[in-house]
Amino acid sequence: MIVKELLNPSSIVIVGASNDVEKPGGKVLKNILDGHYDGRLFAVNPKEATVQGIQCYNQVSDITDNIELAIIAIGCKFIPAIMEFLAKERGTKAFIVLSAGFSETGLEGKALEEKIVEIVESVNGSLIGPNCIGILSPRYNGVFAGPIPKLESKGCDFVSGSGATAVFILESAIPMGLTFASLFSVGNSAQIGVEEVVKFWDKSFDPETSSKTKIIYIEEIKNSELFLKHTRSLINKGCRIAAIKAGTTEAGSRAVSSHTGALAGSDVAVDALFRKAGIVRCYGREELVQVAAIFSHKPLTGDRLAIITHAGGPGVMATDALSKGGLKVPHIQGPEADDLLSKLFHGSSIANPIDFLATGNAEQLGMILDYVDNKFDNIDGSLVIFGTTGMFDVTPVYNVLNEKMNTCKKPIYPVMPSLVQAKDATEHFLSLGRVNIQDEVNMARALSKVYFTPKPAIEEELPIIDTKSIREIIDISDNGYLSPQSIQSLFDAAGIPHSQELVANSAESALFAASKFGYPLVMKVVGPVHKSDVGGVALNIKNKEDLKTVFQSMIKLPGATGVLIQPMLSGMELFIGAKYEKGFGHVILCGMGGIFVEVFKDVMAGLSPLSQTEALYMIRRLKAYPMIKGVRGKEGINENMFADIIVRLSALLKAAPEIRELDINPLLGKGDTIIAVDSRIRVEK
Amino acid sequence: MIVKELLNPSSIVIVGASNDVEKPGGKVLKNILDGHYDGRLFAVNPKEATVQGIQCYNQVSDITDNIELAIIAIGCKFIPAIMEFLAKERGTKAFIVLSAGFSETGLEGKALEEKIVEIVESVNGSLIGPNCIGILSPRYNGVFAGPIPKLESKGCDFVSGSGATAVFILESAIPMGLTFASLFSVGNSAQIGVEEVVKFWDKSFDPETSSKTKIIYIEEIKNSELFLKHTRSLINKGCRIAAIKAGTTEAGSRAVSSHTGALAGSDVAVDALFRKAGIVRCYGREELVQVAAIFSHKPLTGDRLAIITHAGGPGVMATDALSKGGLKVPHIQGPEADDLLSKLFHGSSIANPIDFLATGNAEQLGMILDYVDNKFDNIDGSLVIFGTTGMFDVTPVYNVLNEKMNTCKKPIYPVMPSLVQAKDATEHFLSLGRVNIQDEVNMARALSKVYFTPKPAIEEELPIIDTKSIREIIDISDNGYLSPQSIQSLFDAAGIPHSQELVANSAESALFAASKFGYPLVMKVVGPVHKSDVGGVALNIKNKEDLKTVFQSMIKLPGATGVLIQPMLSGMELFIGAKYEKGFGHVILCGMGGIFVEVFKDVMAGLSPLSQTEALYMIRRLKAYPMIKGVRGKEGINENMFADIIVRLSALLKAAPEIRELDINPLLGKGDTIIAVDSRIRVEK
Repeated sequence: MIVKELLNPSSIVIVGASNDVEKPGGKVLKNILDGHYDGRLFAVNPKEATVQGIQCYNQVSDITDNIELAIIAIGCKFIPAIMEFLAKERGTKAFIVLSAGFSETGLEGKALEEKIVEIVESVNGSLIGPNCIGILSPRYNGVFAGPIPKLESKGCDFVSGSGATAVFILESAIPMGLTFASLFSVGNSAQIGVEEVVKFWDKSFDPETSSKTKIIYIEEIKNSELFLKHTRSLINKGCRIAAIKAGTTEAGSRAVSSHTGALAGSDVAVDALFRKAGIVRCYGREELVQVAAIFSHKPLTGDRLAIITHAGGPGVMATDALSKGGLKVPHIQGPEADDLLSKLFHGSSIANPIDFLATGNAEQLGMILDYVDNKFDNIDGSLVIFGTTGMFDVTPVYNVLNEKMNTCKKPIYPVMPSLVQAKDATEHFLSLGRVNIQDEVNMARALSKVYFTPKPAIEEELPIIDTKSIREIIDISDNGYLSPQSIQSLFDAAGIPHSQELVANSAESALFAASKFGYPLVMKVVGPVHKSDVGGVALNIKNKEDLKTVFQSMIKLPGATGVLIQPMLSGMELFIGAKYEKGFGHVILCGMGGIFVEVFKDVMAGLSPLSQTEALYMIRRLKAYPMIKGVRGKEGINENMFADIIVRLSALLKAAPEIRELDINPLLGKGDTIIAVDSRIRVEK
Repeated sequence: MIVKELLNPSSIVIVGASNDVEKPGGKVLKNILDGHYDGRLFAVNPKEATVQGIQCYNQVSDITDNIELAIIAIGCKFIPAIMEFLAKERGTKAFIVLSAGFSETGLEGKALEEKIVEIVESVNGSLIGPNCIGILSPRYNGVFAGPIPKLESKGCDFVSGSGATAVFILESAIPMGLTFASLFSVGNSAQIGVEEVVKFWDKSFDPETSSKTKIIYIEEIKNSELFLKHTRSLINKGCRIAAIKAGTTEAGSRAVSSHTGALAGSDVAVDALFRKAGIVRCYGREELVQVAAIFSHKPLTGDRLAIITHAGGPGVMATDALSKGGLKVPHIQGPEADDLLSKLFHGSSIANPIDFLATGNAEQLGMILDYVDNKFDNIDGSLVIFGTTGMFDVTPVYNVLNEKMNTCKKPIYPVMPSLVQAKDATEHFLSLGRVNIQDEVNMARALSKVYFTPKPAIEEELPIIDTKSIREIIDISDNGYLSPQSIQSLFDAAGIPHSQELVANSAESALFAASKFGYPLVMKVVGPVHKSDVGGVALNIKNKEDLKTVFQSMIKLPGATGVLIQPMLSGMELFIGAKYEKGFGHVILCGMGGIFVEVFKDVMAGLSPLSQTEALYMIRRLKAYPMIKGVRGKEGINENMFADIIVRLSALLKAAPEIRELDINPLLGKGDTIIAVDSRIRVEK
């Protein structure tokens, strides 16, 4: 839990305060002093009488007052005793432990870490770290690092699983004009990790005073349920969240392991989780702060943009980038457009991009923005790219831009390229509380990314299925692959249509199945896992003789316990898979079968439980979606039916979390009929 | 042509020189003065006696000396007379016309532009502009804009089709440490466009003194042959070229039109052209300068990188980005690795990323880089990410890094994130002639992009085909779609295998075809273009009766001139297409047929003429390539045979450039046999 004393302490002690600002205890004190902390500040160092101009106590017990927050930067072995004293004797509830030497170093360190958590828990307190750079809040600069951004309640709330990364993100963020409401560097996350910070943001959210922009750097998601619950809740309350989950590739995951001893979650699961929550996923520091910059502007509510510029080239590149990102740069024409054009210099262009030439001025920009806001109904927002070749001062232009950003209903996204030539004018613009992205292509990419990140998935009721029967089957099953009969019963209980089938143990029962289903038939050996490889699958069996011959040969295959007999079906091959990912629960994949899965990797993933809406979202984003709808004269399938099976599977997985892997490959679809034909389920209890 | 007086003039006159530095004639003079131009400098202005401290002539004729270069910034109407005087009477050969008011404004301006070109051509001189910002060379700062980068012969050579874009690119380039050897802003390209500058770079290339880094911003490629010839030649001489071709999307092309009155070339053709030349294609200003930054380092000769950092997070993100880009971050292990690890602080990691902790120092970095260079055979280069949290001065680290970049055999790519905290140290590093990319993900992406840009295609001889027969067929053909017989003859002449076929005009000739080919057969109406839509295609005709019935119904279709009869073939459906793109010549597409073209858009494009190597490159980069090789127990096809058909088609197109569109869809492939089954060719003379 995060106590109020952590962010807003009326008194702070720095244990290990130093005159040497190249030491954490020196640097953190300097930052707090530089930030003009207005509460009571104590310094502790056994060897000093004063540090950085303030009185220094030789030991914590020399301080007789109660202290709300302790920031600790001493050798790790000395920490538990001091924390115990502060917690028990001085009422300290908030602790930031900067020192390293804990769980990241091995078992001994881990024990030490558990001890300090215990101390903090015993007083229902908060612990940040150990092995972190600290935190920033509008009240105090509690980090031993820099640069320190401008702190204000409307800035970004920022939590980072890595201290150095947080610092480097600030390096990119500050020159753009981004400000911050808080920074949590969680270090080893002994008590408070990224998830707990996100929970705190949600629980303490106040629509009037809380920041609506949250950014996250995380290497390991330990509790995806908590993370999902609170990020989704925050977004539903009007927040916008961008996050980097590092360690997404196999090589990157090794990097994470070596860094924090953490195992990376599967990247597909992360994608699915972020989409469900409505988080904008980023992959690098600059991308993250660019997305945060987009968050600082009014949101784009439609996909049609005007590009307004005095320089042709950047307008063209921005148009290309927006179009590639899926946004539109529609043609602007008609009497209103002609009217505007007549007011601009000869040679200006209005078609979109609106190019008002190198000689374009502040007044013209204001006029153009008014036209876009009031008269051009096919435009939802605008990108304004305006720099200088150094010929004149652009401050008046930037002032008009700022004013219009305040007054216009449609969002305006500024791109100011001239950080060298128009340094003063740009800094002036930022000082008005604005944020700048220097490159129009980066702006366009970030804008597309934000626009096309779906809203959080709405929680819909899962369909009612026969949970009792499902539990009975799972409870009596052994670990490993389920029998065809069990799968059939599970699917019946979940309402998942499957092909009729019988497992024959004798030629007679095989003939009985044939008489029931009619020819042609499919025969598959039961027992061996990779049936095709051992000659255990036969298609298009057309008569009794073939049936008998095939049965006799299959039943002799090593491991064979019977032969599954199904009617021979045809249709479009579909695929549904599910896998249990540690820390995430079940990830469900869907797509078309065969080469579309294997060669084109054309699958979409979602995090279970999946609603009908989410399942349709997945289906519609398959590259093969036109085939599902029907293409080149070939009939498609009923996508709602396909989605319904995905949702029912999701309900099945909820009832039977012991299912670790599940493959339906193929389902055969023909119009409104979709039938699971071949399925595998592996259970692990 | 570009005369030596343009880049290296011993005398310059500014016509329209002004005291007002907010005017082009004032600003360009100021830039030349600020740059300490060491030749003779004249200023002309009818109203001034001195401008910016130098003597001013009231008219050009008052100057009695010869003048090598004239920079002109006066009203467009007065320009031809003055240029004529300078060219004829003062021996001026180089002209830079900054003024606007020429072809970009309409017909009258176009005539004026033609006039000044004529004057320049009459003395075999050079004209830059009109309507441009000028040029930069190590000799003088001939632009009326800023910022002015550091100019040195080893810097980038830069040509831009847009002046403002050039300036904004410099805004991004200068803070990274990029320097420049030249900048050409070509404006309206009346005489000298981007292509002519590229040709000049090639013709004047000196391996000892010329810059090996070229960057290009272009909106319209007017002469792709010239562009290809000289960019390829430069790259073959050891240069590296990065370019933006703006106006790549439909919306972007409209933007180009409105900007320069140019029609954008097809984006696919641009891709094909750049690949053939070996140009690294970029899409935004920052990406362009990041690629140029990569060019400033030693080239990467293998795909395996070490990531060396003192900060875990950026190491993880860089690993992810390199892996996604196709590069490898291999595990580092073994006795040498253990040896290195033992020399680093406890807790360091060596597995790759090599993380030598927040406390890591200059000496350790030097040691690590020596190990990478000498002992780790599975590493081809390294990314060094090193910033600061502000605790200590990183200058010693950056000095070691600079030293190792000089001495190590393997390339080292520096990422310095701390532009705020380590401003002085970073600027010091740049002052040593180094270039920095601030963000490790941008670095990784740029590096992957450069590494995977293929070398220029080697020019191979096209196969010898029967050009005489091809010309005979084309010469007697009318504009429009060719008949099946003509296509068959063209393919025979080019050695492209095609299915046997006959066009029947009567039921009798249809029966004759059947007796020749045997059943089953395919029948297709001849005449209508969209055969399938009108019921003009019948497959699997198995007997005489069906043949006759189908013939009678097809021959009655509107526009039917006969019925094509082919043996019914089967195999993997392939696709080859070709299209003539104005300014580029023929673009050839290949892929698998059917849904793979139509739904998955899985095609690769190349610019004709295509060599076998290029055709194989295209085939191997198809997403469906595993199917071409054979997958899931299905036999593939002979890719060399497929490539051979593409190359033969290329030879056919060379012999018959009147072919504007060509589709072979499908070719049917079975092992070594690939046969064109259905083809369309449209000729336009």
